[in-house]
Amino acid sequence: MWRATVLTLYPELFPGPLDASVLGRGAAEGHWALDTVNIRDFSDNKYGSVDDTPAGGGAGLVMRADILGAAIDSINHDDRPLLCLTPRGAPLTQHRAQALAAGPGLVALCGRFEGIDERVFSSRDIEEVSIGDFVLAGGEIAAMALIEACVRLVPGVLGSASSLGEESFEGGLLEYPQYTRPREFQGRAIPDVLLSGDHQRIADWRDEQRKEITRTRRPDLWERFLADGPIRRDKNKEPK
Amino acid sequence: MWRATVLTLYPELFPGPLDASVLGRGAAEGHWALDTVNIRDFSDNKYGSVDDTPAGGGAGLVMRADILGAAIDSINHDDRPLLCLTPRGAPLTQHRAQALAAGPGLVALCGRFEGIDERVFSSRDIEEVSIGDFVLAGGEIAAMALIEACVRLVPGVLGSASSLGEESFEGGLLEYPQYTRPREFQGRAIPDVLLSGDHQRIADWRDEQRKEITRTRRPDLWERFLADGPIRRDKNKEPK
Repeated sequence: MWRATVLTLYPELFPGPLDASVLGRGAAEGHWALDTVNIRDFSDNKYGSVDDTPAGGGAGLVMRADILGAAIDSINHDDRPLLCLTPRGAPLTQHRAQALAAGPGLVALCGRFEGIDERVFSSRDIEEVSIGDFVLAGGEIAAMALIEACVRLVPGVLGSASSLGEESFEGGLLEYPQYTRPREFQGRAIPDVLLSGDHQRIADWRDEQRKEITRTRRPDLWERFLADGPIRRDKNKEPK
Repeated sequence: MWRATVLTLYPELFPGPLDASVLGRGAAEGHWALDTVNIRDFSDNKYGSVDDTPAGGGAGLVMRADILGAAIDSINHDDRPLLCLTPRGAPLTQHRAQALAAGPGLVALCGRFEGIDERVFSSRDIEEVSIGDFVLAGGEIAAMALIEACVRLVPGVLGSASSLGEESFEGGLLEYPQYTRPREFQGRAIPDVLLSGDHQRIADWRDEQRKEITRTRRPDLWERFLADGPIRRDKNKEPK
């Protein structure tokens, strides 16, 4: 079973939103499981503190390497990679989520305060990962995003595997626009082609739409799509 | 007061992690507030359904434009922008979070299922925003990330404004490494310069570290930093 372990100062936030909808059902059906480790349990003092002032000065507090090291070492990793959520990390991609979903699970370390003593990273095998170029108050919501991105790809969690086939980033493109009833909404009709019943025309139209949306909205993804050519159609291929 | 309104099929997930730590205190002190609108309340049928099959075929279900339109129109926006969390959107940046934090708040629309009828976007003034190049099961965790990124920048929420000054993306660079006690951890010492008491040397070392970390980890940010030059030091300047 795919397993996520979260090291956090706020274990009460989990599973939280990860218990909703398909992920909640997937956990109830035994496709995945989540547990937490409270970093504060590894404090060495009666106040339960886990941080101290930054060496060299500056605002805020830094999480201590000795306490985090003890918390990390307490876990049975079972070959699961240890990821730390931080804006300094490598940007999370759908490809990385696919690889993580195909493995045994993950361990997620959530920072708080001004950051984490650098020696945690230099002394442990930690993959620093970022969910985007913005700063959060802590790693918890980022860990939830990481775990949700992975768990929905774990076999059995989404009812129909086919619903994964045409979503954003598959084949290096964003998703095509969707329409449903009513046929007309405030003067706007569903495009005729989608009501034609001609499956090839519909597929071609959607393919064109994906390219157009990617080209206009994300020139960076579009350039990579063009550079990689048809190889990108292999969705398991590592993007450049 | 800064306000976030979330349109969702899962209002029970909020505030959830947004009630923890500094954000929870900030709400208790009246610096910001969150409310939710249950999209299902705008269903037109006794089953409470809000979705239907995709026009043109395909897996999954699409959220209906008429129901979402009614949910959106029910809200008092009060000049707050309406953002929809979707992987097709513009990547969220720290700069955008700063601008949103400086305004009156935001309204966040959370999609579920295969997506949202395109005519919601063409008929309403909606900013599509993405927290990263991966796919989630719904917009809720992404909305939490967006709101947390903004709220921590709302005046009064973080105790010390100075702790915002040197974090990742300020000046276009990632954060410098942090250290705290103990002085030695598993054979690894705190760098001497940080214990020197020489504030200028410490500032120079941290500046060099920020540049080195950005250059090696995020060549894309580094190139932008070099291209923008000292102008990037103005943190309110829109990045290219």
